[in-house]
Amino acid sequence: MKRAPLIDGLQYANWSEKIFRQLREGNVDAVHVTITYHETFRETVLQIEKWNRWFEQYPNLIFQGRTASDIEKAQKEGRTAIFFGSQNPSCMEDDIGLIEILHTLGMRFMQLTYNNQSLLASGCYETEDTGLTRMGREVVTEMNRVGMVVDMSHSGERSTLHAIEHSSRPIAITHANPHAWHHALRNKSDTVLKALGETGGMLGFSVYPHHLRDGSKCTLQSFCDMIVRTADLMGHGNIGIGTDLCQDQPDSIVEWMRVGRWTKSIDYGEGSAANPGFPPMPEWFNDNRDFKTIESGLCAAGLDKAGIEGVMGGNWHRFFAKSFGPAAGGSESHVRAAE
Amino acid sequence: MKRAPLIDGLQYANWSEKIFRQLREGNVDAVHVTITYHETFRETVLQIEKWNRWFEQYPNLIFQGRTASDIEKAQKEGRTAIFFGSQNPSCMEDDIGLIEILHTLGMRFMQLTYNNQSLLASGCYETEDTGLTRMGREVVTEMNRVGMVVDMSHSGERSTLHAIEHSSRPIAITHANPHAWHHALRNKSDTVLKALGETGGMLGFSVYPHHLRDGSKCTLQSFCDMIVRTADLMGHGNIGIGTDLCQDQPDSIVEWMRVGRWTKSIDYGEGSAANPGFPPMPEWFNDNRDFKTIESGLCAAGLDKAGIEGVMGGNWHRFFAKSFGPAAGGSESHVRAAE
Repeated sequence: MKRAPLIDGLQYANWSEKIFRQLREGNVDAVHVTITYHETFRETVLQIEKWNRWFEQYPNLIFQGRTASDIEKAQKEGRTAIFFGSQNPSCMEDDIGLIEILHTLGMRFMQLTYNNQSLLASGCYETEDTGLTRMGREVVTEMNRVGMVVDMSHSGERSTLHAIEHSSRPIAITHANPHAWHHALRNKSDTVLKALGETGGMLGFSVYPHHLRDGSKCTLQSFCDMIVRTADLMGHGNIGIGTDLCQDQPDSIVEWMRVGRWTKSIDYGEGSAANPGFPPMPEWFNDNRDFKTIESGLCAAGLDKAGIEGVMGGNWHRFFAKSFGPAAGGSESHVRAAE
Repeated sequence: MKRAPLIDGLQYANWSEKIFRQLREGNVDAVHVTITYHETFRETVLQIEKWNRWFEQYPNLIFQGRTASDIEKAQKEGRTAIFFGSQNPSCMEDDIGLIEILHTLGMRFMQLTYNNQSLLASGCYETEDTGLTRMGREVVTEMNRVGMVVDMSHSGERSTLHAIEHSSRPIAITHANPHAWHHALRNKSDTVLKALGETGGMLGFSVYPHHLRDGSKCTLQSFCDMIVRTADLMGHGNIGIGTDLCQDQPDSIVEWMRVGRWTKSIDYGEGSAANPGFPPMPEWFNDNRDFKTIESGLCAAGLDKAGIEGVMGGNWHRFFAKSFGPAAGGSESHVRAAE
């Protein structure tokens, strides 16, 4: 690999040629993109069809990523590898067989919940947290078998701890920050972060303003100091970036994300009646050309070269390599799988 | 390759461990299996889920075939490669984007029609044959692009000739016989067979009794003499076997094949009110252990070793190799694609 890879652990942009070109200008080698929230399986397939057309239209900018080796390929060919993920299990409906189908179609991450109770576990906005349900345990086992990462970014504390414990392979929280740094419902307790790090799991640091101390006014220094402290808590190999960049999305989309088809009322989620839309981004991160700003912030915060390379993509790269292939064995804990 | 491959160009059995074991006893290296007729996309995915469970349950007997190199793999590992196909375009609904999705899920053959008019072309039971429709031409181009074989086994003459002409890659008639040998609506004229052979296409000879001279009483000699004559008509490299074996299926299945959801009446297709079910197989071919009987019949009919090896699988093998990968170029005629 000619240089350390640059990988973003989650984006949900309103994709366009402009953004694909910005990915290239920013030297982003790989990005995990959300392709679905509350969509049914058939609707999710329509999203994949849309991506297939983009892959056909912009072959010099992007291609579909399936294995960690696609990151080397991306670097070699000067393109960005796009890895699919879902923020909610709606895409698998109530059919465990769809896990393998979605994996074959390229899905590499699936959140077990999105804020609410799902068939599988509890979201972080529920007052009661069931932990993993009967079906949730079966689905985690199946995700482990085929090589789809369990993502607990929007899940409740108990469900997240259950998933870490039940999963035979390391899980991820692709986009969130430590609760100790900013007290948002979506941010994660030190208990969760420690358990995640101890099992080889990954945290992707979010720059979505509702997850940041001081919101849109959060300073780069505060963000980077938090990353250095979290490295000490979780281990330097278990952290990366997961910007949660929702570039160019209209506010109708944040409403779909929050409300889906589960309520006839408005749910403001992390926003409020006074501030219902997407919040303005911090001035130091607006699009894919700004990763180098974070990189220099980490340097200023005192992280060494190896640490910076790990956060900016090296750690995601190693995690992808052990996560996306079929499990080497069925029942052992935290199996390291070949791709 | 240790020996010439043995490949069946079409089966629609009521699959079970028993039949998977017979595939191995018969040394069948690869088989194109029908997974869907009138099923919607979602129902087709349920069929793939069912196959995924069989692949998981019987890994020592079968695995999913995706490229021609899986035939070498099958021989090396003593297993049978299963290639998916559809007998009707219901699986793609009215959505051309589903072609690539189905290809990603392993679909390698799709018939443009099953007896009736479809959105794409006319079936062989229609009195009016539209040829390829507007959508039919677009879909053939898309199938050419991704590497899915156009199969015209149940299509009308004009539609078939249109497909041969419009397709930039060779097409197939996976299971039928020459009309000159047995005057069934499903069998193909010399005009079609010649055009098929001249463009590098393939005919798979069927042992389904309604396609045989004298039906269930057809002799092996008559069948093999017909193959030798067809080799002379089409070229020795353009023919193979496509048994259309429907082993262990209940008669309710042949009704589903014929009637689907397109009529509230009964349509007897190739059968009749007096003979509505599956016809008894000819005594010389009952299951996958009987290919060697066909092989000795071909020898007795005077076909040489190379000719026999071509019919029994060598020709399908070469056809698979040029058919299942993405097109090397878009618009040239009969592009030879690398896999």
